[in-house]
Amino acid sequence: MTVFECCNDMFILDCGLAFPDMDMPGVDIVIPDFTYVEGNKDKIRGIVITHGHEDHIGGLAYLLKKINVPIYGTRMTLGLIEGKLEEHGLLKQAKLIEVEPRTTVRMGCMAVEFIKVNHSIPGAVGMAIHTPAGIIVHTGDFKVDFSPIDDEIIDLARFGELGSRGVLALMADSTNAERTGFTCSERTVGGSFEKLFKRAEGKRIIIATFSSNVHRVQQIIDQAKNYNRKVAVFGRSMVHVIEKATELGYLKVPKGIMIDIDEMNRYPDDQIVLVTTGSQGEPLSALTRMAMNSHKKVTITPNDFIIISAKPIPGNEKYVTRVVNELMKSGAEVIYESMYEVHVSGHACQEELKLIQALTKPKFFIPVHGEYKHLVKHAEIAKSMGMPSDHIIISKIGDVIETDGNSMRIVSQVPAGRVMVDGLGVGDVGSIVLRDRKHLSQDGLIIVVIGIERAANAVVAGPDIISRGFVYVRESEELMDEARNVMTTVLDNCNARDLKEWGTLKTKLRDVLSDFIYAKTKRSPMILPIIMEV
Amino acid sequence: MTVFECCNDMFILDCGLAFPDMDMPGVDIVIPDFTYVEGNKDKIRGIVITHGHEDHIGGLAYLLKKINVPIYGTRMTLGLIEGKLEEHGLLKQAKLIEVEPRTTVRMGCMAVEFIKVNHSIPGAVGMAIHTPAGIIVHTGDFKVDFSPIDDEIIDLARFGELGSRGVLALMADSTNAERTGFTCSERTVGGSFEKLFKRAEGKRIIIATFSSNVHRVQQIIDQAKNYNRKVAVFGRSMVHVIEKATELGYLKVPKGIMIDIDEMNRYPDDQIVLVTTGSQGEPLSALTRMAMNSHKKVTITPNDFIIISAKPIPGNEKYVTRVVNELMKSGAEVIYESMYEVHVSGHACQEELKLIQALTKPKFFIPVHGEYKHLVKHAEIAKSMGMPSDHIIISKIGDVIETDGNSMRIVSQVPAGRVMVDGLGVGDVGSIVLRDRKHLSQDGLIIVVIGIERAANAVVAGPDIISRGFVYVRESEELMDEARNVMTTVLDNCNARDLKEWGTLKTKLRDVLSDFIYAKTKRSPMILPIIMEV
Repeated sequence: MTVFECCNDMFILDCGLAFPDMDMPGVDIVIPDFTYVEGNKDKIRGIVITHGHEDHIGGLAYLLKKINVPIYGTRMTLGLIEGKLEEHGLLKQAKLIEVEPRTTVRMGCMAVEFIKVNHSIPGAVGMAIHTPAGIIVHTGDFKVDFSPIDDEIIDLARFGELGSRGVLALMADSTNAERTGFTCSERTVGGSFEKLFKRAEGKRIIIATFSSNVHRVQQIIDQAKNYNRKVAVFGRSMVHVIEKATELGYLKVPKGIMIDIDEMNRYPDDQIVLVTTGSQGEPLSALTRMAMNSHKKVTITPNDFIIISAKPIPGNEKYVTRVVNELMKSGAEVIYESMYEVHVSGHACQEELKLIQALTKPKFFIPVHGEYKHLVKHAEIAKSMGMPSDHIIISKIGDVIETDGNSMRIVSQVPAGRVMVDGLGVGDVGSIVLRDRKHLSQDGLIIVVIGIERAANAVVAGPDIISRGFVYVRESEELMDEARNVMTTVLDNCNARDLKEWGTLKTKLRDVLSDFIYAKTKRSPMILPIIMEV
Repeated sequence: MTVFECCNDMFILDCGLAFPDMDMPGVDIVIPDFTYVEGNKDKIRGIVITHGHEDHIGGLAYLLKKINVPIYGTRMTLGLIEGKLEEHGLLKQAKLIEVEPRTTVRMGCMAVEFIKVNHSIPGAVGMAIHTPAGIIVHTGDFKVDFSPIDDEIIDLARFGELGSRGVLALMADSTNAERTGFTCSERTVGGSFEKLFKRAEGKRIIIATFSSNVHRVQQIIDQAKNYNRKVAVFGRSMVHVIEKATELGYLKVPKGIMIDIDEMNRYPDDQIVLVTTGSQGEPLSALTRMAMNSHKKVTITPNDFIIISAKPIPGNEKYVTRVVNELMKSGAEVIYESMYEVHVSGHACQEELKLIQALTKPKFFIPVHGEYKHLVKHAEIAKSMGMPSDHIIISKIGDVIETDGNSMRIVSQVPAGRVMVDGLGVGDVGSIVLRDRKHLSQDGLIIVVIGIERAANAVVAGPDIISRGFVYVRESEELMDEARNVMTTVLDNCNARDLKEWGTLKTKLRDVLSDFIYAKTKRSPMILPIIMEV
């Protein structure tokens, strides 16, 4: 999420979500901190969206609950946003405004022009932001595809025209800044599919890919038609996107080719293709359930030819490997390696990044999107083309970059960060809750309960010891008995005054038990003393 | 760990450990199930070890506690095993017997011949197992390095001689079976280091690599000498291995080049190289602490030139990326990409695998080491060289492969699996404990405590509600108050008989609270009702 501000006007570019890191157990999604935009509600003229991927639209529903301003996007992008808002019951009140590439929307003293780009989802655009200080070009997520499936090549001419007029700053996608050369065209995947469909003769074909990659799905459908196969679709998001994309005209589906899951059995293996979610090995996805032999409708056999048309997102490698292993154990043939060219990236590699620099000829450069290391690499690419170091700004989340058209620099910070969503709770899981969850996950917990009669200051019940996630209770009865004895000894040595100071008593019980358990097991479970007033 | 058995004799080949999967929270290491070998104690003639990596020696200390038989290995391998056994107080009683390549040890009716191979640790060997049924060749972990740092090329001639005599079965390393071509020589890394040391002129150099890769460390030391730099060593395992390898003569250290960490300050940046652990971004390693600005002795500055001489093991990508990002944020230059050739694999690629097949000409083939998908790929390679499908055995853990010299097949299973070690506990963490840990890590827990007077069957204390890892208590007081009211209502509706059936009562409290919490928050914390007898 980026905010552009000038005089009394503000607008927001994209509002995505992130998936939780390994150090955020139990968290569902992560959204931006909206403090600054909430505090400037009255200035916000609208939200412009570059494309419909989760990391660009996934936070919108949460933002709309705070500020309801118009949302501008292309037809496909709005189609996907509608689905999100419907889930949150926000669709009716939302103001969604469709914008075509090469058209412009006013945002107070600024204006935003949509520019067609290529990416792994239809309807992706970059933006030219016309401000009193100059033009800022934001590429959004993009690649340069000279033979895209929808025949619409990125609008390089417009980037060039803007460059000729003078671009104050370029903000460009850095995701693939480490990769040399040029990203392959989406169309190359179609060629691989054709060869693989041929090789899969006589077998059932199962292809897993990202649901939002409509052009990939189009190529699967095209090959299915070519080889006289029917197509059945698995996975909630895949079904949803295919419906939406067909309805909006982004996906061309020959009549009669799609079949319902329950019709599958009417066709022999070699007349069907299953398209499914799960290309990242997500534990609950359709493909993973097929692999683990727990899918209700599909059982994997040696007569299956499976293509995983994706690359594992960093962090998912082990999940994907597990799925591949399990599918193979059922005897299926699995195509997952890069050498088969069953996947291409949606992001620009180094030569494409240089092309955009060359066309826009920006005065300042702000690399965006990607890890910090990608931003650094992208900055090096710009430097190699002559951009002075002090005209490159690598910013952190929350940084305010200010420009008057002549200079540009980071001047301050606004509140920013990662707000965690867990179930219905937004922001109610914080560092203490996460610390406790991590502690509990490492060594479990031991609870010590005692009952104290307030009047007499005497222990009248317990100590009882209960544990979870620590050891098998049955095999560790002796240990737990000893632990209880240790607690009893502590209590026996307490006088009436000690039993009045519950805070101190709890600390004492915790410390003694913790030391005892560590000496016996070299583990440090969470110790939770509970005192009941009886 | 593999067991070879013939008539009344058995021996064990390797005994490693695995690091816990993502679904084993809190587990320290995973070792093999020793049930079968314990039950056949009297038959076991010894343990032969191929090389000193953790996944081949890490389970030995646990095995020796059950059966104390001689351990055979090369000098380097035994040096590393000694360190392990010392930690467990087992060194004195252990029988460690040094074996040179091209020599043979008897194991009852079988004999094991050690054969020099190349790998990312010195002293690695494969084995020829001479049995009454025929010769079985086991490569261990290996690669073919024609220009190794210690000038000892894998003993291809011996593999060929065995092939000419007739090899019954080949068991070969499948780790890199997906990779085409030939693995680069370790020496190529030295060339990269030389260029990078030149580029790092004026800067401090920090290099992270695997501590056991002694030849990599040798090349760092060689370049340090070349560029007149002193070497300081960071990380417990790095210090240990360098000492051991120097003592055993595997590492040649020029006099005066090594300096103590505390001497670093006496030298300017451009006269030192720091060698450190942490190439996998391990959270507690020296490099990670430097990156996170929490290392006591080293602060990263823009005058640091950092080389990560390793490739992330699958599953560690995100950790490594985090370390790279943080190092870069401190302004350091970080070399981590594969294009710099600062790392080569220790495992054979496809052409090397074919070479070993061609030399040994085995009758049967058993791909070993690697994921299931790698075994399948390795089997395909063997097939492409003419090995009949029914002469290839892809086995699962615990499978018993039987041969009489003519045929070979899986005939049965022995108890096998993964035994989890947590602290001092071996095998006391099982599926229930892990399930609880996972549950606790996702949504935390809520404890409901009540006190019941047995005699009267009446609630005399509570309900008290305590939570951990669920929500910020302070911000959720209202929710917890409501939860208490819900529990009070349940108890109010109980008669004396209900209060006698504690099992039923607990289930009731758990179910009602669980529904209430889910309806309010869409979360499912562990609910733990505790009844105290007062």
